[in-house]
Amino acid sequence: MGDLNLKTKTAQFKNALYLESGRILEPFEIAYETYGTLNEARDNAIVVCHALSGSHHAAGSYKNDKKAGWWDGLIGCGKAIDTDRFFVICANAIGSCHGSTGPISPAYPRLEPYRLKFPVITIKDMVKAERLLLDRLGISRAYAIIGGSMGGMRALHFAVDYPALARLTIAMAATHATSPWTIAFNKVAIEATINDPSFENGAYNIEAIRERGLKGAAIGRMAGHISFLSPESMNRKFGRDFVGTEGLFDLFGRFQVERYLDYNGGNFPRWFDPLSFLYLVKAINIYDISRGYDSLENALERVKSRLHLFGFERDLLFLPQEMREIDLAMQKIGKSELSRYYHIDSDYGHDSFLVEINKFADIVADILR
Amino acid sequence: MGDLNLKTKTAQFKNALYLESGRILEPFEIAYETYGTLNEARDNAIVVCHALSGSHHAAGSYKNDKKAGWWDGLIGCGKAIDTDRFFVICANAIGSCHGSTGPISPAYPRLEPYRLKFPVITIKDMVKAERLLLDRLGISRAYAIIGGSMGGMRALHFAVDYPALARLTIAMAATHATSPWTIAFNKVAIEATINDPSFENGAYNIEAIRERGLKGAAIGRMAGHISFLSPESMNRKFGRDFVGTEGLFDLFGRFQVERYLDYNGGNFPRWFDPLSFLYLVKAINIYDISRGYDSLENALERVKSRLHLFGFERDLLFLPQEMREIDLAMQKIGKSELSRYYHIDSDYGHDSFLVEINKFADIVADILR
Repeated sequence: MGDLNLKTKTAQFKNALYLESGRILEPFEIAYETYGTLNEARDNAIVVCHALSGSHHAAGSYKNDKKAGWWDGLIGCGKAIDTDRFFVICANAIGSCHGSTGPISPAYPRLEPYRLKFPVITIKDMVKAERLLLDRLGISRAYAIIGGSMGGMRALHFAVDYPALARLTIAMAATHATSPWTIAFNKVAIEATINDPSFENGAYNIEAIRERGLKGAAIGRMAGHISFLSPESMNRKFGRDFVGTEGLFDLFGRFQVERYLDYNGGNFPRWFDPLSFLYLVKAINIYDISRGYDSLENALERVKSRLHLFGFERDLLFLPQEMREIDLAMQKIGKSELSRYYHIDSDYGHDSFLVEINKFADIVADILR
Repeated sequence: MGDLNLKTKTAQFKNALYLESGRILEPFEIAYETYGTLNEARDNAIVVCHALSGSHHAAGSYKNDKKAGWWDGLIGCGKAIDTDRFFVICANAIGSCHGSTGPISPAYPRLEPYRLKFPVITIKDMVKAERLLLDRLGISRAYAIIGGSMGGMRALHFAVDYPALARLTIAMAATHATSPWTIAFNKVAIEATINDPSFENGAYNIEAIRERGLKGAAIGRMAGHISFLSPESMNRKFGRDFVGTEGLFDLFGRFQVERYLDYNGGNFPRWFDPLSFLYLVKAINIYDISRGYDSLENALERVKSRLHLFGFERDLLFLPQEMREIDLAMQKIGKSELSRYYHIDSDYGHDSFLVEINKFADIVADILR
């Protein structure tokens, strides 16, 4: 078990990124981490794609940092994504707030952040930017692209938009087009955020929010946390435990689950910028892999990579059948040999792909073998 | 098909209602409607219990009112709950805002509303008050008690607290104890409401809110509307239809489902008082039919009425298995002959009990026959 030799790197791009909306992003930069070593043939790269609130810090732990990267259980020496064998790249999506260009980045040539003048970006745009990063790193063929949730959407877009890039595509807990159910959860988050008076129509004090939070964004994140779990996982995690000190008949006395939501919701705006949140949610809402094609099947005609699609039994944000629909569409166009659906039996909910790694790590290891 | 002869009646009670919390409500009143005629034996009464945002107006249409009562499809001459045969009573729950005493009622002897000084009330308290209304109407034996959601909780409490009252109990889309999943949805609604600056810690201008709404309560209601539906019903109702006029790449352009949430959320605080909402949500959160007993089984030992329990396949607010657990508990204590579970195959979600009446009306008619 070697050291991952952690370091955040930043790639700067001076040329314009032409966006799906017709607008441009220029210049832009991408923050990323890599683990392992690129082999001489330059063909052992695995691109890992993070979810909405994730970052390029996917594995390992920084000194004095108690929390490891978000997929540390999956990525590392001897793990399913073995850094002794693969060169792993995880980039922060554009639009996010962890180092890649997003709405609070300075809008060149001024030093002021874009804020609401930032262009709407799409999952396709994120992938386009990541493709440029791979070019910069001298990688024209990747071994695999893998991601969950918004990261799964990116993995699928890689397979459709750059069919020659990767041998293998592993997409988990995602969909081919975001459903109204998920858009509805996002709606609560958007409205709660923008209606907080301290949001100031996007002109909020960035430092103050990092310090004190933003109640509206916290409430919006609570709705998110519901969609990440399931009734079953909440029963197990919280039950009906009551933690209010004034007794059950205190109007504002809290159950354990409410304390969890207060804590996790309240912290969120301190580490995740509210404008970035709005832009990434927008990207997710308008995500439809068949946009620009006649149908899902028509889009999938382009795929040359082997598609490994993972659905999680009680995922209530991106239902497993949405992943299965991709597999069915591949069958329909006679490409079943390139597609496989894996149904992971878990009642944890959407977050299974982050917290129940033991349920699918062996499958991932097998796929990569 | 006769006329229901609609009229809101109000019963006033001068004696104190002793609440589960140890506090009292004194005086109090209950608004109600009745349909049909009480027979000479005074034994043909059916008590209908409404859900959180429902009211005593369960059937028929008032002149100039486009909307019929909330269970009009089920109640009326020749319908499943046949008003030619039964005397139907529907009372507004205490704590609500449709005529029964609640947080915006004047706090005797002053004329000022209680607001946050209103005592926390429970489902048990609501039922206790309704029991007094039945006394007032000279009804000591009812033919049946029936309700859905919060109304199903009340029906179950009738069966446990007043076992000699009704021959039949029909509870739909409810539970025996509110789950953390549902408490989490309620949490979003509570926080969104109380953090709107116009809520003014409960001291808001009641008339102004009826006129202009309350954004926080509207956002909270959006979370509610998610929990009332299902991914499947949203796919069918809304799909991914986009209604924004500035195009897909407008950051705040809306999908059809978002317009639906804006419309229904936005209207809610205009017709449902935010404080009443908080109090009823509290009653639902702390609802546990076994409180005061050693177990669910122990509470159900008291039941003498025939229990008819309805669960709806895709109800994601009160899962069908929660209703089945009541049936299983009845079996466990050797009372299976008094209990029956009906699984209604519907993918509409929680609101099935309100909008898919055709899926269970015949069963209800059979039970009442």
